[in-house]
Amino acid sequence: MSTVKIAIIGAGSAEFSAGLVRDLCVNVGLHGSHVTFMDIDPQRLDMVALLAERLSDELDAGLRFEKTVDRTQALRGADFVINTAQVGGHAWTEAQRAMAERHGYYRGLGLHNLGQAAFFLEVARDIERICPNAWLIQSANPVFEGCTLMVRETGVKVLGLCHGHYGYRSVARVLGLDLAHVSAQIPGFNHWIWLTDFRYSGQDAYPLLDEWIASEAEAYWARTDQTRTYGDNQMTRAAIHQYQLFGCMPIGDTPRQVGWWYHTDLATKQRWYGHLGGFDSEIGWQQYLDRQYERVQQIEQVATEWDAPVSETFPPVQSGEQIVPIIDALVNDVSGLYQVNIPNRGQILPGFPEDLVVECQGMVSGAGIRGIAQPPLPRKLMAGAMIPRWERAELFVEALRGRERDLLLLYVLGDPRTASLKQANALLDEWLSDPRNERLALLFGEPRPS
Amino acid sequence: MSTVKIAIIGAGSAEFSAGLVRDLCVNVGLHGSHVTFMDIDPQRLDMVALLAERLSDELDAGLRFEKTVDRTQALRGADFVINTAQVGGHAWTEAQRAMAERHGYYRGLGLHNLGQAAFFLEVARDIERICPNAWLIQSANPVFEGCTLMVRETGVKVLGLCHGHYGYRSVARVLGLDLAHVSAQIPGFNHWIWLTDFRYSGQDAYPLLDEWIASEAEAYWARTDQTRTYGDNQMTRAAIHQYQLFGCMPIGDTPRQVGWWYHTDLATKQRWYGHLGGFDSEIGWQQYLDRQYERVQQIEQVATEWDAPVSETFPPVQSGEQIVPIIDALVNDVSGLYQVNIPNRGQILPGFPEDLVVECQGMVSGAGIRGIAQPPLPRKLMAGAMIPRWERAELFVEALRGRERDLLLLYVLGDPRTASLKQANALLDEWLSDPRNERLALLFGEPRPS
Repeated sequence: MSTVKIAIIGAGSAEFSAGLVRDLCVNVGLHGSHVTFMDIDPQRLDMVALLAERLSDELDAGLRFEKTVDRTQALRGADFVINTAQVGGHAWTEAQRAMAERHGYYRGLGLHNLGQAAFFLEVARDIERICPNAWLIQSANPVFEGCTLMVRETGVKVLGLCHGHYGYRSVARVLGLDLAHVSAQIPGFNHWIWLTDFRYSGQDAYPLLDEWIASEAEAYWARTDQTRTYGDNQMTRAAIHQYQLFGCMPIGDTPRQVGWWYHTDLATKQRWYGHLGGFDSEIGWQQYLDRQYERVQQIEQVATEWDAPVSETFPPVQSGEQIVPIIDALVNDVSGLYQVNIPNRGQILPGFPEDLVVECQGMVSGAGIRGIAQPPLPRKLMAGAMIPRWERAELFVEALRGRERDLLLLYVLGDPRTASLKQANALLDEWLSDPRNERLALLFGEPRPS
Repeated sequence: MSTVKIAIIGAGSAEFSAGLVRDLCVNVGLHGSHVTFMDIDPQRLDMVALLAERLSDELDAGLRFEKTVDRTQALRGADFVINTAQVGGHAWTEAQRAMAERHGYYRGLGLHNLGQAAFFLEVARDIERICPNAWLIQSANPVFEGCTLMVRETGVKVLGLCHGHYGYRSVARVLGLDLAHVSAQIPGFNHWIWLTDFRYSGQDAYPLLDEWIASEAEAYWARTDQTRTYGDNQMTRAAIHQYQLFGCMPIGDTPRQVGWWYHTDLATKQRWYGHLGGFDSEIGWQQYLDRQYERVQQIEQVATEWDAPVSETFPPVQSGEQIVPIIDALVNDVSGLYQVNIPNRGQILPGFPEDLVVECQGMVSGAGIRGIAQPPLPRKLMAGAMIPRWERAELFVEALRGRERDLLLLYVLGDPRTASLKQANALLDEWLSDPRNERLALLFGEPRPS
């Protein structure tokens, strides 16, 4: 058993930090470890640290905590850096969405991801300088493009983690299968993963899905009760249509991302994702934001209610997050299989560059993280889904990497809503001239006249 | 000196066939060869054969000719098969364009290329069966997708040829350079090639281009005189804008293909391609069709005017076509460098699959065709232009290869004009139900309800 030093960037996210501390309490091999909470918001830091201290004390985990608004200080001596920060928080993300909507892009086009990825690279460069042997666990999005950018630009050990792959459990649940007998292979890119192998008691389970589609899907889609929440995207009409289009079931966040044609307006979203229009409609997303806000309020209350133990709210059971078990596996050589995002070295996913970060199963142990090589993906999936998604990522990553406003422009021109060069340039000009985007504006230089 | 048997599929194209016979007369190493003209139009065949006989007699080339409407017969014993056929001729191409325009796709979206490529594959399969050692020289479009499809589906020796790369000479001419001292490297995919190296007397000639852009381009673009024809796309405002966007000058047909944003309507085309709107506007294309028609009339007249030698119209000088010199090089071991389209075996163009047909320089000799390996293309060009183009080709090729209507649908959904799933399906349904598309309809089966 070794103790480690873990730095959390963006630790003000109370639910994330508390969940991580809870998992550290559960994984006894990491008891006694040191956790540094870093955030630019000192008040949130205070709350998170208070909660963490109480939880560790109650569960006798002997964890030590530190809090700082100084990233450099947080990184000093770190063995693991977890980046969960969202630059500018939800407010800036929503402002960027609204800006894009004014230029004709309903629900935005994800421009905030560019600022996120540029920030990831700053953190990775700090790690190279301050704690070059640390593992960087990228938890905030965009995991796919952000991790690829860091892998291409630094020598840092980058690991992207997500829980979207658990979506196969929703498939199994809706089909009425006993999870204990379900197995799944779900390779791809983060938020773009596909159920290439799906078994129930060792037998191909796809026929069970086909049967459900034929006999039960319409009734399921017609339901508008409380079981159909904003987060319930896995078995939507869109996901099944994607399964039929590509020949593989899209898993987790994938059905949200695939296909602009499901997202042209609210009515279309509702047809494909149910009455709330899915996670990414104005209805579903607002519910998500509201729930996030309520959850923060609730955690804040728990942290300062001295009468009740916080472990009532955060009971000592392993969460769905893979982060702490993976740290345990690496540090204490507790080998296990995880769903990871790592460079495609050795052609884990045949046909893509070795410096592209892919999502796959990885064997994690004291020896490190070894990707489980996948057979070539079906040709239909490659041509229809994987190469098109890679193409977008490549533009995104190389735009940031080369500081190429031209590539940024091509990225916007590649959005199916863009109707003219003028429209794309107008959006980019406004976006880059926003004071909150100062660092990106510097990166991309002056706009080119056109 | 060896004689060969050459079969021309689509030989009714008089200009093409007459040019080829003229080149055979010029290349004395191929005198005495046997040429079979195959076409479905017997009248055109008669005219072509008459012209060819007269030309060979006048130039004493001892060529032997045969004509047939039976493809199997044409392929029997062939050493070289040249496929220059356009399925359904210009009429069917224009009908498909009009159909697409009715569905909201101004100037169409190239659906005729799918029928072409499917036909190429039929020819390649015939070659596998009838003359498996023959070289297939693919001259009709789409060379990129069509050759890739044939390479993936057959064992035939496929060579795609085009003259677009000579566009670098137009660049040189406009810059006032002496062609004898100009060299150029122009790799890529057919109709998607880039001037990665451009020299004048050994020195980088790009600064000369930059100077022209700064001082002379606007005056050049303002001209509307007879020097600005529909075919004059090489030095347009669009081509220069593409050079600025991607960092490399697009060559030949490339500036016509890159960027939907130059093609949204006639006024936009005129802004970017000059007063005719370029080759692909309703004005430019009609001029091209008119010229083609006039040329056919002219050749027909020449063929039947017994008073004048046809070699006055087709003088014995090597044309711009590479076909006959390459046949000579292969047959008589006359080694030389050519611009070829061949499979990317050995990673001639690093980063693309080995079974993708790329355009590159090739050393042609009795030993065969050896691609000249290229250094990695600039990252900006890869991310901005090459990978996006490959993505489209992959969908196209795999749709035909797998007989996947779903991929065909994704191909149409990937067109920036497509605004809904319904629009894409409506176009495909009409297109596949056209009696002229019977073979493709069989290939893609029944439309899927959506």
